Amino acid sequence: MALAPPEREVRVAVLGCGNVGSALIGMLQDRADALAVQSGARLVVGGIAVSDLTRPRGDHVPAELLTTRASDLVVDPSIDVVVELIGGVDPTYDLVREALSAGKPVVTANKALLASPEGVGLRTLARQQGVDLLYEAAVAGAIPLVRALRESLTGERIHRVMGIVNGTTNFILSRMSEQGADYAEALAEAQSLGLAERDPTADVEGFDAAAKAAILAGVAFGYDVAGADVMREGITGIRAADVDFAERFGYVVKLLAIVERTGDDAVSVRVHPAMVPKTHPLAGVRDAYNAVFIEGEAAGELMLYGLGAGGRPTASAVVGDLIDATRNLMAGTTAPSPERMPARLLPQSELQTRYYVSLDVTDRPGVLASVATVFGDNGVSIRSMEQEGHADGARLLFVTHSAGEGDVRATLDALAGLAVVVRVGNVMRIVGDDE
Amino acid sequence: MALAPPEREVRVAVLGCGNVGSALIGMLQDRADALAVQSGARLVVGGIAVSDLTRPRGDHVPAELLTTRASDLVVDPSIDVVVELIGGVDPTYDLVREALSAGKPVVTANKALLASPEGVGLRTLARQQGVDLLYEAAVAGAIPLVRALRESLTGERIHRVMGIVNGTTNFILSRMSEQGADYAEALAEAQSLGLAERDPTADVEGFDAAAKAAILAGVAFGYDVAGADVMREGITGIRAADVDFAERFGYVVKLLAIVERTGDDAVSVRVHPAMVPKTHPLAGVRDAYNAVFIEGEAAGELMLYGLGAGGRPTASAVVGDLIDATRNLMAGTTAPSPERMPARLLPQSELQTRYYVSLDVTDRPGVLASVATVFGDNGVSIRSMEQEGHADGARLLFVTHSAGEGDVRATLDALAGLAVVVRVGNVMRIVGDDE
Repeated sequence: MALAPPEREVRVAVLGCGNVGSALIGMLQDRADALAVQSGARLVVGGIAVSDLTRPRGDHVPAELLTTRASDLVVDPSIDVVVELIGGVDPTYDLVREALSAGKPVVTANKALLASPEGVGLRTLARQQGVDLLYEAAVAGAIPLVRALRESLTGERIHRVMGIVNGTTNFILSRMSEQGADYAEALAEAQSLGLAERDPTADVEGFDAAAKAAILAGVAFGYDVAGADVMREGITGIRAADVDFAERFGYVVKLLAIVERTGDDAVSVRVHPAMVPKTHPLAGVRDAYNAVFIEGEAAGELMLYGLGAGGRPTASAVVGDLIDATRNLMAGTTAPSPERMPARLLPQSELQTRYYVSLDVTDRPGVLASVATVFGDNGVSIRSMEQEGHADGARLLFVTHSAGEGDVRATLDALAGLAVVVRVGNVMRIVGDDE
Repeated sequence: MALAPPEREVRVAVLGCGNVGSALIGMLQDRADALAVQSGARLVVGGIAVSDLTRPRGDHVPAELLTTRASDLVVDPSIDVVVELIGGVDPTYDLVREALSAGKPVVTANKALLASPEGVGLRTLARQQGVDLLYEAAVAGAIPLVRALRESLTGERIHRVMGIVNGTTNFILSRMSEQGADYAEALAEAQSLGLAERDPTADVEGFDAAAKAAILAGVAFGYDVAGADVMREGITGIRAADVDFAERFGYVVKLLAIVERTGDDAVSVRVHPAMVPKTHPLAGVRDAYNAVFIEGEAAGELMLYGLGAGGRPTASAVVGDLIDATRNLMAGTTAPSPERMPARLLPQSELQTRYYVSLDVTDRPGVLASVATVFGDNGVSIRSMEQEGHADGARLLFVTHSAGEGDVRATLDALAGLAVVVRVGNVMRIVGDDE
């Protein structure tokens, strides 16, 4: 028995017809009756903006709907809702702005746009126009994270959100951890599988994750943060030896996007590799999967896990938003979108966390005492230490108690000046087993 | 910088003031300004229905709001929204029906009510009245599962949902798996920690999980299913040896609530212990945590993880619903609530899955041949077999390919009649590594 779908039509403009756009158009056709029942209207594709009319596309993409005139399409009075899947800030900023100005709800998967300084203005414009600007697909693909934070957890005081929000780097780190691969090998494998771009900078240097962290700061805490202001370290400096050390000490190395409340109106927003205890739910997130771990005052610990990229998972999130936008449009309402506040971002030097530090030292009596004195003089308390034999001397591996990043940097600078220290090796932050 | 909260008041009746009600009242006070910004109205507790006025309650529960006259409170014209936290079907069915009939949205954490035959009528009544009946807290506590399925994944064709939705049994099975405890020991520990009731029947026999599975069938597939119609097996028959076998073969034993599409208008809704591969995300869900694994056509695999019970986590989910109900009330709309269809439930005999079967046999030549013939004659294909020495003979451990449950039952009956079979041991379904 099927329910009768409604007669009313809502016409959708799709901007961009790559993997996600093509998957979206397919879903809107294949699931037309079910989507009509859910949204209360038939969702009809009214136009598809592309940059090249001659490129071959799947048979399910109706050629007569293709146009290169995106800016005409977004203001076309026959279009009710706009889905933006082009990516980047130019020309998407103008297109989204014009659509919102024309009173049309917009659904977008565009993290770069939302994390740009202009993105802030678009949210304000949408609120003023009383229309939706929805972006579930922009942070973690198919994972229903934005709606969970915006609606389910909206009454919750969130302390921290930590996410594995970049599948490429998680794949590379999984390979390094599980197969002992070094970074270059793991990157090459990711590239050969199509999981990393030929120029992998946006992923491996953490730019993609930083844009997502900025969006998360808005959704979780109501702060406006630009991607460019996010503290950011990538994974290109991670050595097989660091991953191996982490493994032996019960940790896994993950690239995390972290937004953390650090005071009444201050927040730390950052992306960096971190050592996560193996017993932590994030540690088990492997390959190209994403997951976001949320710590709330009343809810406790939550984690949402799934595919963060790919045409169909991303299109799935777009469809969820499209149904929401359609229902709200017909009801004359919008999704919750409280006014944002400017964030006071915690300076990196004030970050408090635990650290792993490796030092190559000469193997002489008294070395540990000199090194420990430097830690102590800078106010950094050592939680555990291991010594390993090493070709030209010894390697000391330290785990600190929670310490200020400025103090740790000062410690490292002073250590580098000690005669007994041959080399300050990698330093990595530790999260997830807070004291 | 804080945003100015709105002036408008929405008055909330709270029915029941146990752990969840008390936590809810505390959250509504502590977070009043933030909740007002989110919901667009000040949420004011207008009355608290209890069964015993003299019981001591926290200082944060205003004594002047307590009443034993719940049925007056739900129709009080000064009350805008009703939160039902009493539990059970009587008198909650009448209270919720009267509140909805009076045009008041209802938020409930009551799985028993929603999975009762009467629960179906309440959803219909809410739809007819054009008011919300919201129940995020009824399935998996703080985990934003219902909203994810109802809104984010509403356009998704869901194939299967598998959940660890009972924290008590997951704690018991975790202890059996991690510490080699037997069932009785692990139950006693759960009881001593307050994680299991003195009479643990509702948890360990799967009644609690069955009610949640019934609700999941509605949210995931739009089918109306009563808890009493859910196929149900508990964990009281699980032996330490079964958990140990699972461990050695790379599995973990979990009590799962499964709703699975088995045809265009058919669904299998069941609760039973299952062997889950250690590499599956559900396998890592330990102690009293809950998690729900969702397989969607476009979204792929998703998992939501968190605390499924407890006063504050449950209250957190109630607050999310309360904000939703308040926003919808003021906008004159409701959360999506498509009409439900009656389900065609797959008979247990038609269930298709993989099985683990243990047999104690006499240690004589030709035994395996006789046993294997019985499997083959009944159309059950063996995927792997292990033989172990055993005091009075041998133990054969089989894993089958996917097979019909009716065929497996017939196989077991025939095996029990073989002279060489001393005893048919435990049989367990295997999920999560589908062929």
